[in-house]
Amino acid sequence: MPNLILVRHGQSEWNLANRFTGWWDVDLTDKGVAEAEAAGKLLKDKGLLPTIAFTSLQSRAIKTLHIALEAAGRLWIPETKDWRLNERHYGGLTGLNKDEMREKHGEEQVHIWRRSFDTPPPAIEEGSAFDLAKDPRYAGIPVPSSESLKLTIERVLPYWEEAILPHLSAGETVIISAHGNSLRALVKHLSGISDDEITGLEIPTGQPIVYEFGDNLRPARERYYLKDA
Amino acid sequence: MPNLILVRHGQSEWNLANRFTGWWDVDLTDKGVAEAEAAGKLLKDKGLLPTIAFTSLQSRAIKTLHIALEAAGRLWIPETKDWRLNERHYGGLTGLNKDEMREKHGEEQVHIWRRSFDTPPPAIEEGSAFDLAKDPRYAGIPVPSSESLKLTIERVLPYWEEAILPHLSAGETVIISAHGNSLRALVKHLSGISDDEITGLEIPTGQPIVYEFGDNLRPARERYYLKDA
Repeated sequence: MPNLILVRHGQSEWNLANRFTGWWDVDLTDKGVAEAEAAGKLLKDKGLLPTIAFTSLQSRAIKTLHIALEAAGRLWIPETKDWRLNERHYGGLTGLNKDEMREKHGEEQVHIWRRSFDTPPPAIEEGSAFDLAKDPRYAGIPVPSSESLKLTIERVLPYWEEAILPHLSAGETVIISAHGNSLRALVKHLSGISDDEITGLEIPTGQPIVYEFGDNLRPARERYYLKDA
Repeated sequence: MPNLILVRHGQSEWNLANRFTGWWDVDLTDKGVAEAEAAGKLLKDKGLLPTIAFTSLQSRAIKTLHIALEAAGRLWIPETKDWRLNERHYGGLTGLNKDEMREKHGEEQVHIWRRSFDTPPPAIEEGSAFDLAKDPRYAGIPVPSSESLKLTIERVLPYWEEAILPHLSAGETVIISAHGNSLRALVKHLSGISDDEITGLEIPTGQPIVYEFGDNLRPARERYYLKDA
C-alpha cells in the first residue's frame, strides 16, 4: 500500500527569533537538526522507509530531508526540489520580528495576516533587503510579492497532482519535507478541512505525519503521527 | 560557456582504514567532511557556481555533494543520483584490508587488481557479507560481481552521454560528485588518456577539477584544478 509521509522542517533560526520567514532562506538551529535526525530514526524504527522524496527550494526543508534520510539509511533515494513546496510568502512582513509587528500594526492585524485564509500580507517592496525576485534560485519562477494561504494552496495542489500523486499511484512511499503552510495546503486537501479551520491547524516541526493511500488515490484512513503508530 | 566540475568524495572511513571499498557504503571521516566543505567554499570564492548536480548512489559521494553545495550556497540546485557513477566494484576484494591482501595474494597480484585496465578482481561470493545484490538501493539494477576499470568505463560513459552531456549542451554548470574510478572514466574520455596511463592517474579527494566546454560539446582546453585558477 502506498504511503505518504509529511515532515515539516525542524526549528529554524527565525522560528527561534520569532521573525516572519516565508521565502527567506534561514538555516536550521541545533534543535532543528536534532528534530530532523529524530524524524529519520523514527522512520527507520517504524520500518516506514521512503522510496522517493520531494522538498522545496529552501535550505531548512532540504537539510531536514537530507538529515532525516541519512538517519533512516535512505540518503540514496531520488529527490526533487520545487518552489511550489516553498513556505507561504509573507510579503512585506518578511524579516520582521513578530513582536515589533504587533506593536506597529496591532495584535489583531497581525493575527489576520497570519491566520486569514485569503488576505495576503502587504506586498514586499521591490528591492527591499528581503526581495528574492532576482535571486538566481528563483530564475524563471513567478516569485510572488505576498501570499495568503489560499494563494499558497493554488500553487501547491497543482504540483501535488502533477508531480507527486503519480508516484503514490505507482506504489511508492513518498516523503515530502516542506513548511507549515505548504503542508497545511496538502492536509486541507487530503483531510477535507474547511477554509476556516485550516488556518488554526498547527503542523509540528520534525514530526512525521502519515497518510496511507488506497487504490483510488485517496487516503484510506485519516492521517496520524508516525510516533503514535 | 558551460563548465564541468568533477569532485571526488572526501576521505572515507575505509580510505583511512586502507580497505577495498568499491560499492560498499561507508561514511566520510571528519577530514572528508572538511574536504567537502573546503571544495564548496572554493566554488563560492572562485564564483564557479554549479546549476545542476549528479552523484552516485553511495553516501560518501552524496554527502560530499550536499556539504559542498551548502558551502557554495547552492543546496537548492537539482540533483540526480545514479548507480552508473558508483565506484568501481571491487568484487571479492571488497572489505579486505589492503595489507592483508598483499600478504595473501602477493604485492604483484594486488597491484594488478588495483591498476590493471581490464583485469577484474575475483567475483564477490554470493551471500557474502559485502554482497549488495539484494540491497533495496540496487533493486532493478544489474549489480556487477566485480569490475575492471574497463567495465567501469562501459557503464559510466553511456550515462555521461545520455544524462549529463545534454545539460552542458544547454549551457549549465554541471557538478559531478563521484569516486576515484568513475571519475577516471570521465577524465580518460575527456582528456584522451590511454588505457595504460589512466590506471596510474590519481584523482585527489575533495579537489574540484574543471573542464571548460566549447560549442562542439568537447572540452575547450585541458582540465585544471580550480584551486590553481
